[in-house]
Amino acid sequence: MTASFSFALQHQDGQARRGRLVLPHGVVETPAFMPVGTRGAIKGLTIDQVEALDPDIILANTYHLHLRPGDRLVGDLGGLHRFMGWDRPILTDSGGYQVFSLASRRTMSEEGVVFRSHLDGQALSLSPESAVEIQARLGSDIAMVFDECPAWPATIEQAEVSMLRTLRWARRGRDHFLKVGAGQVDDVVSSTPGQAQFGIVQGGTWPELRDRSVAGTVAVGFEAYAIGGLSVGEPTDVMYGVVAHTAAQLPTHQPRYLMGAGLPDDLVECVARGIDMFDCVLPTRNARNGQLFTRRGPIAIKNARYARDPLPPDPECGCPTCRRHSRAYLRHLFMAGEMSAAALNTVHNLYFYLDTMQAIRKAIESGRFDTFRRGFHETYSRRSADHLSK
Amino acid sequence: MTASFSFALQHQDGQARRGRLVLPHGVVETPAFMPVGTRGAIKGLTIDQVEALDPDIILANTYHLHLRPGDRLVGDLGGLHRFMGWDRPILTDSGGYQVFSLASRRTMSEEGVVFRSHLDGQALSLSPESAVEIQARLGSDIAMVFDECPAWPATIEQAEVSMLRTLRWARRGRDHFLKVGAGQVDDVVSSTPGQAQFGIVQGGTWPELRDRSVAGTVAVGFEAYAIGGLSVGEPTDVMYGVVAHTAAQLPTHQPRYLMGAGLPDDLVECVARGIDMFDCVLPTRNARNGQLFTRRGPIAIKNARYARDPLPPDPECGCPTCRRHSRAYLRHLFMAGEMSAAALNTVHNLYFYLDTMQAIRKAIESGRFDTFRRGFHETYSRRSADHLSK
Repeated sequence: MTASFSFALQHQDGQARRGRLVLPHGVVETPAFMPVGTRGAIKGLTIDQVEALDPDIILANTYHLHLRPGDRLVGDLGGLHRFMGWDRPILTDSGGYQVFSLASRRTMSEEGVVFRSHLDGQALSLSPESAVEIQARLGSDIAMVFDECPAWPATIEQAEVSMLRTLRWARRGRDHFLKVGAGQVDDVVSSTPGQAQFGIVQGGTWPELRDRSVAGTVAVGFEAYAIGGLSVGEPTDVMYGVVAHTAAQLPTHQPRYLMGAGLPDDLVECVARGIDMFDCVLPTRNARNGQLFTRRGPIAIKNARYARDPLPPDPECGCPTCRRHSRAYLRHLFMAGEMSAAALNTVHNLYFYLDTMQAIRKAIESGRFDTFRRGFHETYSRRSADHLSK
Repeated sequence: MTASFSFALQHQDGQARRGRLVLPHGVVETPAFMPVGTRGAIKGLTIDQVEALDPDIILANTYHLHLRPGDRLVGDLGGLHRFMGWDRPILTDSGGYQVFSLASRRTMSEEGVVFRSHLDGQALSLSPESAVEIQARLGSDIAMVFDECPAWPATIEQAEVSMLRTLRWARRGRDHFLKVGAGQVDDVVSSTPGQAQFGIVQGGTWPELRDRSVAGTVAVGFEAYAIGGLSVGEPTDVMYGVVAHTAAQLPTHQPRYLMGAGLPDDLVECVARGIDMFDCVLPTRNARNGQLFTRRGPIAIKNARYARDPLPPDPECGCPTCRRHSRAYLRHLFMAGEMSAAALNTVHNLYFYLDTMQAIRKAIESGRFDTFRRGFHETYSRRSADHLSK
């Protein structure tokens, strides 16, 4: 472990955990939600607007930044923090998920993945080693190890093959990470000394595969562990089951990160199962599609019922959008195709996610997480709150 | 004149004028530039971001808001200021220019214009009277009288016919405006008591037509006068000539508004010819297309020369974009199609325009406008500063 990385577990309430993660660029209070800034920008927002929302950490995508503008360019300009103008923590994913979901003409081997850029067809490759090097050049606070995320549904045989390869890649990735950190790899200069590396547990929906993945990944040894391969189409109760089973086996005194989840009620339920960190595109992507998360559930702002509605999207919300604008105005902007609709909706949704995490942290601190959880579900409808919106 | 409207001419330096305009929603320091918020939003920016740029007044388009969401809806919700969440002055145009440039199947008559919405083909009409009513419902601080803007080039005969019709419409528009203001028109409630109405001088590029238009429009009597029918394709020196000729004949103690102009050097040159107010889509539209105005001239941020350039767009600029971001990052956002590229570029361009106006006002106050004007042109290149950008 590097000197710049530490995690202190401060409170526990049932399985829910309240912690503090120290990274080279600052402190992350957990449980934490990481807004997604795929290409070095949270879609729809300027960095000033992101900063005003006050997230402790954001996520950026290795695959996208490797393709454009390129990690060498970003590294030469001082790393991703300086490039974006963002001086707080950043987590970069490994590129694995995108290479499987976006790239074309993919060829897998034990070595890694050869693929064509989805932008211009350029031949590229990613491996456990190159994913380490790219993330070192980007200079994120947290790098993710290169893994293989199987499609859902998969057979247990496919999931096992993939999980075992991920374990072998974990060993290679960790070894290379330590060499890069020790300055033993030519041509790779990290812009963030003290970068941490998280391992990723795979194994699909099979408890026995998850068990072996946890044991193998922890045996390699990382600063923390993520649960991958969920939020890929499986039913919600299946996801909750795998999360509960897997989180319980992970080391108590290291953070646990559930990759790619989820809806607001998923955050509450997975905190209840021992998760400390989350990322998800839903608050930002759905904002651009006109879906606003409120304390009662999501509303679709294009709905004609809002055309003359003078209320803010969520009357109980303190975000800049709700403090200033009505549903009628936001509907007008959305229907007219104004870019500011995306910005205002994104500000609201991220505020709601970050505010929910803050409420979760406070509830755990005061030992009343179960009360909070019950209250949240009594008010929040996962499907739609359009019919309730008065 | 209404009690809420006043204009004080504070300094004069050659033909350049420094004034203060008082409107129902606040004070406008002149010469002033009005950012364009066509559909009740400055494209690319939230109202928070507009407010941070601190313009005294913005412009919104009557044609667009009449079509969507509709002036009755806006009026029912308390007027455009409340609808947008913007509590400073707003000027609305008359809809005339858009009806001639955007609407389809247009039929002109002495009564007004019948046309089809460019959005859904709905049959609509605009007349001197209905333009007054729409703007009363929107509740702008300044309403523009309904005019006819002839295409360029036009023959002197066409320009004369159009100018004379505009004069007859001015009389009808003013009469109706006074009736609405006195509460004598059923079904029209203004959300801004004390709204002012500006007349519009037409006459193309013919000095004798402009002379007759000034005399006729001033004889009708408005709170102030605008010069219309320029920035429609005529050469720059022709525009400057018409502006100088026309402005000189307008009443000294009322503001003069040049509609739809222009580039940064046009603002300097038209202030030198006696103009007090401007609006133009160029800083916002060109920002979305990746053109950034700098003290040396415009630069095209997509230019490959900026790919690794760590400097801000304009090293001498104090705007939020230049204080935080490099040309390399802004080029990346633009090339990647990130919405925040439009926001950051728009912030910069509007800051540059508003900052230039502030420098103009200070120069007039201190009687050194000519020195400022010479210095501006020595540094600023109208065409491109890409080759200078270091």
